[in-house]
Amino acid sequence: MITATVLGASGYTGMLLLRILAHHPQIETVFASSRSGAGRFVNETDPGMSAATIRTGKIHPVVLSPDEALRREADVVFSALPHLASAEVCAPVLGSTVVIDLSADFRFADARQFASAYGTEPPAPAYQDQAVYGLVERARTAVRTAMIIANPGCYPTATLLPLLPVVEAGLVVPGSIVVNAMSGISGAGRKEKRNLLFAERSETISAYNPGTLHRHSYEIRERIGLAKSGTEDGVLFTPHLVPIKQGMAVTTVFASQDPDAAIRTLYDAYSDEPFVRLLGETPPETAHCRGTNEIRIAARREGQKVILLSAIDNLWKGASGQAVQNMNVRFGFAEDAGLIREAEL
Amino acid sequence: MITATVLGASGYTGMLLLRILAHHPQIETVFASSRSGAGRFVNETDPGMSAATIRTGKIHPVVLSPDEALRREADVVFSALPHLASAEVCAPVLGSTVVIDLSADFRFADARQFASAYGTEPPAPAYQDQAVYGLVERARTAVRTAMIIANPGCYPTATLLPLLPVVEAGLVVPGSIVVNAMSGISGAGRKEKRNLLFAERSETISAYNPGTLHRHSYEIRERIGLAKSGTEDGVLFTPHLVPIKQGMAVTTVFASQDPDAAIRTLYDAYSDEPFVRLLGETPPETAHCRGTNEIRIAARREGQKVILLSAIDNLWKGASGQAVQNMNVRFGFAEDAGLIREAEL
Amino acid sequence: MITATVLGASGYTGMLLLRILAHHPQIETVFASSRSGAGRFVNETDPGMSAATIRTGKIHPVVLSPDEALRREADVVFSALPHLASAEVCAPVLGSTVVIDLSADFRFADARQFASAYGTEPPAPAYQDQAVYGLVERARTAVRTAMIIANPGCYPTATLLPLLPVVEAGLVVPGSIVVNAMSGISGAGRKEKRNLLFAERSETISAYNPGTLHRHSYEIRERIGLAKSGTEDGVLFTPHLVPIKQGMAVTTVFASQDPDAAIRTLYDAYSDEPFVRLLGETPPETAHCRGTNEIRIAARREGQKVILLSAIDNLWKGASGQAVQNMNVRFGFAEDAGLIREAEL
Amino acid sequence: MITATVLGASGYTGMLLLRILAHHPQIETVFASSRSGAGRFVNETDPGMSAATIRTGKIHPVVLSPDEALRREADVVFSALPHLASAEVCAPVLGSTVVIDLSADFRFADARQFASAYGTEPPAPAYQDQAVYGLVERARTAVRTAMIIANPGCYPTATLLPLLPVVEAGLVVPGSIVVNAMSGISGAGRKEKRNLLFAERSETISAYNPGTLHRHSYEIRERIGLAKSGTEDGVLFTPHLVPIKQGMAVTTVFASQDPDAAIRTLYDAYSDEPFVRLLGETPPETAHCRGTNEIRIAARREGQKVILLSAIDNLWKGASGQAVQNMNVRFGFAEDAGLIREAEL
Repeated sequence: MITATVLGASGYTGMLLLRILAHHPQIETVFASSRSGAGRFVNETDPGMSAATIRTGKIHPVVLSPDEALRREADVVFSALPHLASAEVCAPVLGSTVVIDLSADFRFADARQFASAYGTEPPAPAYQDQAVYGLVERARTAVRTAMIIANPGCYPTATLLPLLPVVEAGLVVPGSIVVNAMSGISGAGRKEKRNLLFAERSETISAYNPGTLHRHSYEIRERIGLAKSGTEDGVLFTPHLVPIKQGMAVTTVFASQDPDAAIRTLYDAYSDEPFVRLLGETPPETAHCRGTNEIRIAARREGQKVILLSAIDNLWKGASGQAVQNMNVRFGFAEDAGLIREAEL
Repeated sequence: MITATVLGASGYTGMLLLRILAHHPQIETVFASSRSGAGRFVNETDPGMSAATIRTGKIHPVVLSPDEALRREADVVFSALPHLASAEVCAPVLGSTVVIDLSADFRFADARQFASAYGTEPPAPAYQDQAVYGLVERARTAVRTAMIIANPGCYPTATLLPLLPVVEAGLVVPGSIVVNAMSGISGAGRKEKRNLLFAERSETISAYNPGTLHRHSYEIRERIGLAKSGTEDGVLFTPHLVPIKQGMAVTTVFASQDPDAAIRTLYDAYSDEPFVRLLGETPPETAHCRGTNEIRIAARREGQKVILLSAIDNLWKGASGQAVQNMNVRFGFAEDAGLIREAEL
Repeated sequence: MITATVLGASGYTGMLLLRILAHHPQIETVFASSRSGAGRFVNETDPGMSAATIRTGKIHPVVLSPDEALRREADVVFSALPHLASAEVCAPVLGSTVVIDLSADFRFADARQFASAYGTEPPAPAYQDQAVYGLVERARTAVRTAMIIANPGCYPTATLLPLLPVVEAGLVVPGSIVVNAMSGISGAGRKEKRNLLFAERSETISAYNPGTLHRHSYEIRERIGLAKSGTEDGVLFTPHLVPIKQGMAVTTVFASQDPDAAIRTLYDAYSDEPFVRLLGETPPETAHCRGTNEIRIAARREGQKVILLSAIDNLWKGASGQAVQNMNVRFGFAEDAGLIREAEL
Repeated sequence: MITATVLGASGYTGMLLLRILAHHPQIETVFASSRSGAGRFVNETDPGMSAATIRTGKIHPVVLSPDEALRREADVVFSALPHLASAEVCAPVLGSTVVIDLSADFRFADARQFASAYGTEPPAPAYQDQAVYGLVERARTAVRTAMIIANPGCYPTATLLPLLPVVEAGLVVPGSIVVNAMSGISGAGRKEKRNLLFAERSETISAYNPGTLHRHSYEIRERIGLAKSGTEDGVLFTPHLVPIKQGMAVTTVFASQDPDAAIRTLYDAYSDEPFVRLLGETPPETAHCRGTNEIRIAARREGQKVILLSAIDNLWKGASGQAVQNMNVRFGFAEDAGLIREAEL
């Protein structure tokens, strides 16, 4: 049994982390921290928390300030803070406590890529070597001993899981990758911004930050390049906002030297994974992933091209669920501990 | 450990029953039955079932016909069939196996009320005496030994739970009850009807079947009348369809001889209930109940009147969740077994 | 042909006023004013303005500051500013230019009612006598000569139009009126508040500010009391937020000395109104009013009670559309000028 | 002034045609026809029709059967019937009356392409030569004298308008075109199918019929090939269903020999079009097109690739609006007659 701290507990990913951890069989205590909520009761900052969750008694009932939270002994610290803030707040425990960071601060191997995406230097370069990019299904061994786990972004998770095995196998024609992604609005966080208002986002679809204007573009490219140098060239990523609360669908098209082999490679890579669901050619629905840590993947050949279709719940597999999966692997728990759950109807 | 059968497994309440039961600690095996789906794999008729649910191994993998399903030995039969069909299909096991019926067939103590609501005689009058109206919080003792449990309708559940204690205490002025209810579209079932299409129901609100035109009007009135004769007179119930998938909110207004006492009575009645959440004057949100068996209730005095605000997930507390709660009470399991669950974010 | 100024042009009602006026046959020029948008092009502050609207050439292309806007000669000033700000900004033209005010500043005949609702004194008591409560169908004669037209609130519009004729006819039992209302989220304006975010409001229904906690409660009561003294007692109004962008449905229940006469009175009152659609007992859909100035009304008797069901587009009939209707009446234009429009599909 | 007939008036595109035509300055009379609605009043089959629309008096009040409708003298027949049914029902007037067909029956120049897409021979091959593919901005001259105008599909309209000028200019690298499209649910029509129910489509995103599984794939490829032979090869089109009622967004990526010239070509092609709105690099929102005949287009260079972003209202520019635009061109009316309209807020 371990103790966990959640920094940034008043955002969607922080709130969800608390809720998942409260029902996790290996968790004894969870501390919630939030600058804005410090001193209030947890079920005031998250009024949607169920009585069943509160009755587990695992969540410390008062929200702490970040400083106070880090003074409590915890075996693992989850940071759901914004980028740059995250590395700074976590600094006191970096290297000494396992940190699972949901921000971008430790995601980049190459500091220049971070700078291109976030417009500034990485905030804690001295610790980058200790960080592992926690795309669990592709990084299990490294996660087992990591002191810093950089939890991947939601778009990169849904894009890279189906794509990386094929890239690694050398079955993608460089320059041919086109990624189109659609995200529910919770992916933009809980910020009070006009363009996130219900009346602005309902009944509308829109691309935003196409191509290199979106930060996840760099995260995706770096990982593809690390898998097979050169394949990252010209990857064209376009995200879209769609009026659902939770859910993300990604459609990736690429040319392949051997499309059938590419699809076989994908199937071989994930035939035995608890959270990867292979659907053949049947397109996945985001609703079928809602409330679970599953990624659903379909693949279809069209001539010399391959279409990969993937779907996740952006807050579960794309953030908090994957973070708990990382914790499970890191601490030697069953990989699905706390994540065994029926999908939302 | 017991075995359960779910009749009508291809509708929303049937699908949800399967999913909940698969994760229930006291359930060993679940048989799914559906006329239209018989012979197919369960995860074909419910493609949104998560891998985690399937891996429990508790659900018999092939959907059975109703006849075949009833030939299997089961300790409890859940019927999620439509009214009239339900009593007929369940006939072979009535009286010998515990039946939890989500239809209206056994809900009415008075056959004339059933006839007014459903336009025909009750289908199994000989068994009505064995049936208990399973509004658990108001009927626990009777449920413990019942052979037929009539699971209440969604509107009656959300309306009666806050209202009955006050009615029973004689604190409601007869003739003064006005109930307005709003339901998500899943409450209308999975029928292929034009008025349930996305493009017909999105971005619109509408009352439907106001007053005695809605069948649940009779169910609500009968229960109020049984609680305190005369109080059912003139209860005016108006339901509305609102474009959400799951969720129900009910606003009830009545005049009281002593509004403060009425609110105190409500609080006393439910201070110790695992699935009733009392919010003071803070109006409940249906989203905070989504994916849980909770009912959230607020109450406010205005002069000599009381406003009761209640919210549930119509498919959980309003149907399948309450049905499992009834099973738990009937079989002596912990009342929240299989129902301990974080709310959907 | 007249010239109009719109204050508060960056909110939803201001934006819609501009769009309607640009296509109005009697409008020559429209000036848009907004503190935050001053100096920018109109189609920057409203990027959703259609090319067809811009090409009318009627809208002055640059957004003005309020001061600058009021220095331009205009025949009519529409104020879509918040309450208190509105009377203050309009002060220089009150009494000299026709002002159609969409805020609450001139809606109350009784200063104490304003104070109860808004927590402060009415901002321009000296001008209250010149103000007419512009519920057009009930106030046409007064509107024709008014210098200040207080455009009613959205909830009061949808509530009072069906209710007032019956109240005036003395056919409502005092103390019996219960009003339940459901509004789309645009009714809360374009403010950057957390509880208006898409991810907070989608897939949820909630009552808010029940009873006298909502300001429109006072506005409704005052008008009912002015129609028939005493009938306002105990009117219980409960608003709900529903996840649609535009649309409002109101369900009103009251006891009547003669329910059939009440319904006949309603029909007689509106048999000849261009914007009132009487549906018999068929419940109205808000979607059928979307993008039009119509109110749709149904009525049904249940014993000694009457159910009134009404639906509007909260931004059209509930705000900007009704404001233009008021202008039409005030200036002697055809009452439906600029408002002849197919409903949104 | 002309007379029009609308076949298939009970579907979304037929209903919208009626509403638009009722307000069209050159239309004198409109006959509505629908097999299922024949004999009923128009406002029974379309209860959402506004009083303002009915009061125009232009719509013949009773819905006719198709046979009866075609016996009335009309200058133009709009067919909103399904494919195959359309050509068959229109047979009596083909060649003698102007037919604007919203189905696929006359869209294909090459019968083999039709057969690949629709699984059967084109239904009226003898008339194919008289048919013009009515993508107005690319076909104005031909439309002016056509007796059969094949109104393009919604996906092809939103895809081809931005793409064709660049293809024609030879600025697209063959084999490089990837099209991802997102449609509101009304695009699937008004059919009573389970997968179109609100509770199945809300809160979910899904690709469907990826690549050549979707019929519009063939329509898009044929037009691209006719614009520049060879460029159609490997065009990869993937449509997605998104939970909005109306609206379509298309994201097209291609490699170009000269990306800057490609974007310039696009701008030159449409600098003077009433219904094409060029936004620079600002991604369009479907909501900004809602209720109008506009297509909004943005373009962005990324290295040697170009991203085209386009948005329309699938029922207006993608169907009924474009059909009326075709009528306007065909009959020499102002091209925007009946289509001058503010966007929906």
